[in-house]
Amino acid sequence: MGDKYVYFFGDGKADGSAKMKDLLGGKGANLHEMTRLGIPVPPGFTISTEVCTHFYAHERGYPKKLEKQVDAAVGKLEKLVERKFGDTKKPLLVSVRSGARASMPGMMDTVLNLGLNDDTVAGLAARADERFAWDCYRRFMQMYGDVVLEIPKKKFEALFDGAKRKRGTRLDTELTAADLKGVVAEYKKLVEKEAGKSFPMDVRDQLWGAIGAVFGSWNNQRAITYRKLNHLPDDWGTAVNVQTMVFGNLGESSATGVAFTRDPATGENRFYGEYLVNAQGEDVVAGIRTPQPVNRSEHAPGASLEEKMPKLYGQLCDAYRKLEQHYRDMQDLEFTIQDGKLYLLQTRNGKRTGFAAVKIAVDMVEEGLIDEAEALRRVQPEQLLQLLAPTFEPKAKKAALDQGQLLTKGLPAGPGAACGRIAFTADKAVEMAKSGEPVILARSETSPEDIAGMSAAAGIVTSRGGMTSHAAVVARGMGKCCVVGAGELAIDDEAGKMTVGQRVFAAGDWIAVEGTSGQIFGTKLPTRPSEVIQVLIEKTLAPEKSENYERFAKLLAWADEKRRLGVRTNADTPVDATAARAFGAQGIGLCRTEHMFFQAERILAVRQMILATSAEERRRPLEKILPMQRQDFVAIFKAMEGLPVTIRLLDPPLHEFLPHEEAAVASVAEDLGVKPAFVRERVEALKEFNPMLGHRGCRLGITHPEIYEMQVQAILEAAVEVAAQGVKVAPEVMIPIVGTAKEFEILAEMTHRVARQIFEKKGRKVDYKVGTMIEIPRACVVAGDIAKTAEFFSFGTNDLTQMTYGYSRDDSGVFLNAYVQQGILPGDPFASLDQGGVGELVRMASERGRAARKGLKLGVCGEHGGDPASIGFFHGVGLDYVSCSPYRVPIARLAAARAALGVAEDRTA
Amino acid sequence: MGDKYVYFFGDGKADGSAKMKDLLGGKGANLHEMTRLGIPVPPGFTISTEVCTHFYAHERGYPKKLEKQVDAAVGKLEKLVERKFGDTKKPLLVSVRSGARASMPGMMDTVLNLGLNDDTVAGLAARADERFAWDCYRRFMQMYGDVVLEIPKKKFEALFDGAKRKRGTRLDTELTAADLKGVVAEYKKLVEKEAGKSFPMDVRDQLWGAIGAVFGSWNNQRAITYRKLNHLPDDWGTAVNVQTMVFGNLGESSATGVAFTRDPATGENRFYGEYLVNAQGEDVVAGIRTPQPVNRSEHAPGASLEEKMPKLYGQLCDAYRKLEQHYRDMQDLEFTIQDGKLYLLQTRNGKRTGFAAVKIAVDMVEEGLIDEAEALRRVQPEQLLQLLAPTFEPKAKKAALDQGQLLTKGLPAGPGAACGRIAFTADKAVEMAKSGEPVILARSETSPEDIAGMSAAAGIVTSRGGMTSHAAVVARGMGKCCVVGAGELAIDDEAGKMTVGQRVFAAGDWIAVEGTSGQIFGTKLPTRPSEVIQVLIEKTLAPEKSENYERFAKLLAWADEKRRLGVRTNADTPVDATAARAFGAQGIGLCRTEHMFFQAERILAVRQMILATSAEERRRPLEKILPMQRQDFVAIFKAMEGLPVTIRLLDPPLHEFLPHEEAAVASVAEDLGVKPAFVRERVEALKEFNPMLGHRGCRLGITHPEIYEMQVQAILEAAVEVAAQGVKVAPEVMIPIVGTAKEFEILAEMTHRVARQIFEKKGRKVDYKVGTMIEIPRACVVAGDIAKTAEFFSFGTNDLTQMTYGYSRDDSGVFLNAYVQQGILPGDPFASLDQGGVGELVRMASERGRAARKGLKLGVCGEHGGDPASIGFFHGVGLDYVSCSPYRVPIARLAAARAALGVAEDRTA
Repeated sequence: MGDKYVYFFGDGKADGSAKMKDLLGGKGANLHEMTRLGIPVPPGFTISTEVCTHFYAHERGYPKKLEKQVDAAVGKLEKLVERKFGDTKKPLLVSVRSGARASMPGMMDTVLNLGLNDDTVAGLAARADERFAWDCYRRFMQMYGDVVLEIPKKKFEALFDGAKRKRGTRLDTELTAADLKGVVAEYKKLVEKEAGKSFPMDVRDQLWGAIGAVFGSWNNQRAITYRKLNHLPDDWGTAVNVQTMVFGNLGESSATGVAFTRDPATGENRFYGEYLVNAQGEDVVAGIRTPQPVNRSEHAPGASLEEKMPKLYGQLCDAYRKLEQHYRDMQDLEFTIQDGKLYLLQTRNGKRTGFAAVKIAVDMVEEGLIDEAEALRRVQPEQLLQLLAPTFEPKAKKAALDQGQLLTKGLPAGPGAACGRIAFTADKAVEMAKSGEPVILARSETSPEDIAGMSAAAGIVTSRGGMTSHAAVVARGMGKCCVVGAGELAIDDEAGKMTVGQRVFAAGDWIAVEGTSGQIFGTKLPTRPSEVIQVLIEKTLAPEKSENYERFAKLLAWADEKRRLGVRTNADTPVDATAARAFGAQGIGLCRTEHMFFQAERILAVRQMILATSAEERRRPLEKILPMQRQDFVAIFKAMEGLPVTIRLLDPPLHEFLPHEEAAVASVAEDLGVKPAFVRERVEALKEFNPMLGHRGCRLGITHPEIYEMQVQAILEAAVEVAAQGVKVAPEVMIPIVGTAKEFEILAEMTHRVARQIFEKKGRKVDYKVGTMIEIPRACVVAGDIAKTAEFFSFGTNDLTQMTYGYSRDDSGVFLNAYVQQGILPGDPFASLDQGGVGELVRMASERGRAARKGLKLGVCGEHGGDPASIGFFHGVGLDYVSCSPYRVPIARLAAARAALGVAEDRTA
Repeated sequence: MGDKYVYFFGDGKADGSAKMKDLLGGKGANLHEMTRLGIPVPPGFTISTEVCTHFYAHERGYPKKLEKQVDAAVGKLEKLVERKFGDTKKPLLVSVRSGARASMPGMMDTVLNLGLNDDTVAGLAARADERFAWDCYRRFMQMYGDVVLEIPKKKFEALFDGAKRKRGTRLDTELTAADLKGVVAEYKKLVEKEAGKSFPMDVRDQLWGAIGAVFGSWNNQRAITYRKLNHLPDDWGTAVNVQTMVFGNLGESSATGVAFTRDPATGENRFYGEYLVNAQGEDVVAGIRTPQPVNRSEHAPGASLEEKMPKLYGQLCDAYRKLEQHYRDMQDLEFTIQDGKLYLLQTRNGKRTGFAAVKIAVDMVEEGLIDEAEALRRVQPEQLLQLLAPTFEPKAKKAALDQGQLLTKGLPAGPGAACGRIAFTADKAVEMAKSGEPVILARSETSPEDIAGMSAAAGIVTSRGGMTSHAAVVARGMGKCCVVGAGELAIDDEAGKMTVGQRVFAAGDWIAVEGTSGQIFGTKLPTRPSEVIQVLIEKTLAPEKSENYERFAKLLAWADEKRRLGVRTNADTPVDATAARAFGAQGIGLCRTEHMFFQAERILAVRQMILATSAEERRRPLEKILPMQRQDFVAIFKAMEGLPVTIRLLDPPLHEFLPHEEAAVASVAEDLGVKPAFVRERVEALKEFNPMLGHRGCRLGITHPEIYEMQVQAILEAAVEVAAQGVKVAPEVMIPIVGTAKEFEILAEMTHRVARQIFEKKGRKVDYKVGTMIEIPRACVVAGDIAKTAEFFSFGTNDLTQMTYGYSRDDSGVFLNAYVQQGILPGDPFASLDQGGVGELVRMASERGRAARKGLKLGVCGEHGGDPASIGFFHGVGLDYVSCSPYRVPIARLAAARAALGVAEDRTA
C-alpha cells in the first residue's frame, strides 16, 4: 500500500485510468478514463479501495495522510469549477458514491447534493430559483439522514407527505419554496430527535460522514448477500467517488438520460436511449414521468433529443462513438445536460441479451473493432441458450405481467418458453399430446417412468427438486422448457389439482412456463420458435434465411478453431444423436442403455429377467431383449457414422425397474403370470437402504454376468451389422461404477471374449475400445491400476460428487440451499464442479491414469460436461473431451474455446 | 534363477537350511535343517519352488538341467540307503510330497510307496512279509491312480470293498496276500480302462508322473481357493520333496506317531503326543485304531512309548528338546520307528489355542529362550479374545457335537460362548433377563431400538447381516457373544418362531451359541467364565489367583513398552468406559451421543424435538434433554478421570429416531398428543432415498444449530461441574461428517461461543478441544484447510469406506461375498482397512493435515481401530492413537506393539 489514497480527475487530466479498476473501482476508473479521453465529465476525485481495506482492518479508521489528501483534492476541485465548498455565494456541491471492482447495482450507498446547509442553499438558489434550491436541500437532508445518520427513510417521507397533504396536492412539484423550507425545518427536528444531535451544518463534517457511510455500506447485509450470490470476494472493498454535482433540472435547457451505444435487446448497431428535459437522473428510473427517445422516432415526433437539442445530441453521439471505439464494446451511458452543457456521468460495458451478445460480437469482428478471440470472450456460453429456445412474444408477456398472471417463480431448469394444457400424469400427457394439444406436464417430481410423458410435453413443471433433479437433467437433455422446485405450487398428482395461493388449476387448464427465467404464468401466452432450431433440427428454415443462425454458426466456427477440448454428447436415442450431431457433437460420450429398458415392449422382459432367481432363468428374457437392444445400437451407430460412440453397460440397481405401489405390483404380476406375493417378495428382497451405494453398475455385471454379456453382444453384433453395410463404426464399451482394477479386468476380459465369439461367427471384425467410468472416489485413487487395462476413462462427475461429498442428490436439497446461503458452498456442486475437492480427485485420476498408460483417453460425461466453469477446469486438467446433453453442445463448444483463451468463467451455480 | 534345482539332504548333511523356505518350502527347509542338526531324518531331496514357477511359465515344462540333477540325487540316495530304485532285491521306495512356503494342509497332493511294481514288490516282501508288500503296492496304485492318473478314488475303493465282501470281512487286515494280489490285478484293469494305458511299471516314469502331479496340484481348485481365503500369493509355487520311505508297520518294533513339544491346548510345558505300534502315519489320523499316549499315563498303564520303548522314547525326547531349543518355539513333530530305529519325518511350529499361545510365549521369556519382543511376535492379537470370553465346557460341547445338536454355523461376530432361552424381541429379552433367566436374543437383524435387549441378553443370534452389521458391531462393543448371518435359521420375529431344517424353536427354548466359532447348538451347554474378565471387570477373582490373568497382564505390559500408538476406546456409557479403562484404554476416542437419545425417558422428548417444525418449537424439548445429557457426561467424565474423552455430536439423520410402522406411529402420536396423520406426514417428509448420504451429522448442526448448541452446553456444563469436584477432565468436542472447512469453522465457532458463555456464567474454565471426524472423501482432500481450525482429526473409517468404495454397508452383503470369492477384494473392507484405496485417503489427510498444523492430533475411531492389520497400517501412517470397542482394547494394545516391532499382520477379513 503506497501513500497515495486520493486520485483526481478533471479538465482532461486524470490520475487514474480504466486499467486501475482494482484500486479505483469500476465506476471510478471509467470516470478517470473518460476524462483522459476528453469526454466532458464533472470533475472530482476517487478515494481508493485500499482505504476501504484499511477502514475495516483498523476499526473503521482512516490512514493518517488521507485527510490532507482529501483536503487538497477538494481545494483543487474548488479551483477548477470556481466554486467553494461551504461558500454561500458559489457553493461547491458534490455527490459521494460507492464503486467496487465489479458492479453491485443498488447494493451500496450514495449521497447527492452534499455541501448544502442553511447558508449555502442561498448560493444554489442563485443558480436557478429558491424552490429548486430548497428542494435540493430537503432531498439532501433526506438522503443523508437515511444513509449517514441511519434514520428510517419512512420518517422523512411521512413528514414530506404531511406537507403535501397540507398543500392539498399529491405532486412534489406543487410545493412552493416556503413549503419546502417548512419541510427542512421539520427534518431538522426529526434528526435532532432520532440522532440525538443536530443535522451537520459544517460541509466538511458532511463530507466525512458520507465517506464513512459509503465505506460502511460495503458490509451492509444486502451487499454481503449480493457478493455471496455472485461469488465476489469480501476483501475487494469499495472506492468512494466524490464528484461535482451537475443538475439536469435547472430548466428547459437542462436534461438527463441513459443510453446504450447499441440495442441491448437485439444488438442492432444503433444508438438507443431515453431522456427527460428538466429532470434528475432518478426521475428517469423512477418512472413518474415518461422518458422520451434520444433518437428521432415516429412514435414521438419532435420529442427526441435529436430534434430538441441537435447540437448537444451531436456531442453525445461523438462521445458515444469515441467511447465505443475506445472500449471496443457496447457502452451503457448516463448523461446530464446542465444549462446547455453536456456531461457524461458514467460509462460501462452494457448488459445485453444473448441475441444481442452474439450479434454485437460478430458485428464488431466484421467492423474490425475486435478479433475473433475477443468475440468469443464477449459471449457468455449460457447466452447461446436464448438462441436455441422458443421465446414468448415480448408484448404478450409484458401484458401478462401487468395483469398479475405471474403465478410464481421456480428454478430455470430447461431453457425456452412453452404454453399448454396441464397434465398431471405422464400417460395423460402422452394422450393429450397425441390429440395435438400442447401439454405442460406438472408433477411434484418426475421419475424414470415419466420419460415418455416428459418427451410428449411442451414443457415441464415440478414443485420439488433442484437444478440437477431428474426432471431438470432429463429436460435439459431433451432441450425442453422446464421449471423445477417451484415450491409455492402445491401439485397433487393423484387428485389432479395444482394450487398456488388462491388459484386452483385442474387438468386441461392453460399455463405458460418460461424455462429461461423460471417464471410460471396462469394464462395462455403465444411463443415464437428458435430460428437456430428451425434451421438445424426441424429443417423448416433455410440457413441463409436466418441472420441469427448465421451469426450463431459463425461464432461457433471460430470457437471450433480455438478449442482444444473435444465435445461429445450424452445421447440414448437416434433422435438425440442426430440432434447432437447437428449441434456439432463429435461423438457420443455417454449412451445410457437403461433408458432403453423402460420402453413399453421391453419392460416386461426386463422385469421377467429381474424377477428370475437364477442365471439360467434370466437368460430367456435376456434373449428377448437382445435383438431390441441390437436394433437400438444399429440406429445410433448409423446416426453417428464415423464418430465414436461410448455405450455404458447397465448402471442402476435392478429394483429401479420394478413397480413399488400395490396396484402396479398386481398388474406386473398379471402381465408375467405370477402371483403378486411373489413379485412383492422380490421387490422387498431387492430393496436397498442406500441404492446409490448399492448393487449396481459393474457390481451387477460381476454377479449377473449374463446381463452384461447380452449387452456387449448387442453392441458388437450391431457394430458388425452396420460395418457390413459400409458404415464406419467406433464403439466404446464403458463399464460403470468400477472401484477396483480387478472388477474392470474381469469385465474387460468378458467383453473381449464375447467380441472374439461374434467376430468369429460373423467373419468380420470391428475396432472397439473398453474403458470405464471413473465415478467412485476409490477409482480415482487406484486409477493407475485401472489404466493398466482400461483404454479410456470417462469421469462420471455426478456420482463422483455424490460420493466425494457424501451428498445424495435426491436428499441434499434440504440443506444445500442453506449451505449456499451461509457461504459454506460457493454453489450447487452438482451444477458446477467442486474444483477443490471433486476436481482434485479428477486431477489425481488423470495424472495416475496417464502415468500408467501414456495418452490414455480422458473425458467427462457427468452433467458438469455442459457447465462452462467446469469445462474450464477440465480443459486445464488436460481431458480430451467433455460430453453433455445435445442442447448444450454449442455451449460446450464455446466454453471450450473460451477455456483455451484463458477466460475464467463465473460459476453458474 | 540359478542352475541348481535339486537340494539333497541325508546323513547329517544338507544342501539347504531352515532359512531357505522361499526356495524349498516350509516342509523341505525343515527337513534340511533337521538333517543338519543331526536329527535322524530319512534322506531325500527337494526340487525347488523355482521349478514350479518355470513349470507354469513354460506350459508345464521343466528346466533343461532338472532331469540330470534328479537322476544324480536319486543315485546319491541309492548309495546312502544301499537300495536301488527299481531293484527287485533291495528296492528304493520314496514318498513324493508338496511343500509351499506356508503350510496349506491337505490342499495339494502326495504319493507314498513310489517305486513299487510287479518286480520290486518282491524285494519289499523280503523286508517283512508278502501281505505287507502287496498291501503297500495296492495302496500306492490307489494313490497314484487318483493323484497322477486322475482316476476317481471311489472306483478303486469300490474294487477294494468288493474284495473284502468276497472275503466276508469289513477289516483291511483280514485280507490275505493272495486277496491283495487279486486287488492289484483288478486295479491294473481299472487303470487300463480309465486312463487308456497300463499302470507304469518303470519306476522313473512313476517318479516323473508324481513330480508333475504335485506341481500341478498347486493350481487345483482347492489350493487356489485356500490361497485366496488366506491371502497367499499365487506366484509362490510349491517345492517337491522326494524322500526315502520308512515304515512304521514292519512289526512290533515299528511304530508311528505325532507329538507336540508343549501342550497345544493349554501351553503347559510337557511333551505331549500319541502313537501306534505297527502302523502307518495315516492310521494315527484316520482314527480306526485308538492311539496311545507317548508319555506314561495313568489312563493307559503300560501302553505308552515311554514304557514300551524307553530307549527310543529317550531319543525322541532328545530330538524334541533339541528342536525346540533350536527353533525356539513349540514344535509339532511327526515320527516313525522302523525296525527299532527312530526317524523324524517333519517338524514345524505347532498351532495352538490362544491360551497356549500366551502361556508358551510368556514361559519362553522366563526360560530365557526368547526375548519379550519375540513373545509379542508369537501371539496373534485375535488370540487374546479367547482369554476374554466364556467357553463351553469342552466335554459337554463334544458330546453335543456327537449327538448332532449342532444346528448351523453363522459368522463369528462376538466372542465367547453363551447359553440361554430364546427371546424374539428386545422387550421380551429384557423381561426374561430380569427374572434371572439367561437369554439368547434371536432376530432376523437388529436395529438401534434393540440395544436394551441386546444388553440384557447373554448372547445374540441373527439370520441376516455380516461382520459389520448392527448386531455384530454392537455386540463386539459390548464384548457379547454373537453369531450373525446364520442364513439357515429362519427367524420369524413376529410369530416368535425359529426354524432350522426340520427343527422348530419357540420362545423360551434353550439354545447355545459359540461366538468364537459361529456355531449354534439346539441344546443347553454349560459355560465356564473368563478368568481375565472375572479379575478385571467383574472383580470376582483376585489377580494372583489366576495364572491366565497374570500372563495376560504381563504380555500386555510388554506390549505397552513397545508400542508407540495410543489406544482409546469407543464407549457411550460409564459402564463401557469403566470396562475399557480396566482393559487399559487411554481415553475415549468416540463417545456417540445418539445412543443416549434412545433411552426410554428421553426418546419422547427427542421425538417431540424432531416433530417440531421450527427452531423455536425445538427448543422446549431440547431443554428437557439437556440435563439428562449433562448427567451422562458427568458420569463418563468421572469414569475417565484425567483421560481425554472425545464426544461426537449428533450424527444420524433425524428420521432414525422416528417410528416407521403404523402401530408405532399411532403410539408415538398418542404419547405426544398429536394426530397420527401429523406424525406420518413428518416421517414421510424426513424420509430419505440414501440416508447415508443425507441430512445428518454437521449438516444437521448447521441447519438445526439449537441441537448442537444443547449438546455442547451439556458437555461443557458437565465438564465444569466435574472439574468443580476436583476431577480432572479433558473433553474433546468432535464434529461429524465435515466435508468443507467452512462447516467446521461455523460449528467450532459455535462451540467456543457456548463455552465462553458457560465459563463466564459458572466462573470456571476447563480446557477443551474442538476437532472433527474425517469420514467424507472430500474431507481427506481438503484436510489442509480443515486443519487450520481443527485441533484434532479422528478418522471415521466406516463411513469413509462406504463413500470411498460407494458401498452401503447395509446393502453390500449381496455382492461382497462374490467379490471376495472372485478375488476382486482381498476381504471385507469394513473388517480390515482397504489400505490401497481408503488408506491412501487416510494418508493424504494425515499429511495435508499435519502440513497445515504441526503436530495435529490424529486418531481413528472406526471399527478398523480394533483390527490388527489395520492397526499396523495406522502405525505406519503415523496416527497418534486408535480407538476401538472396550473388549478389543487389549487386542489393539498387542497389535500396536507388534506394529512397532514390524510384524505384518494377516488381514483378518
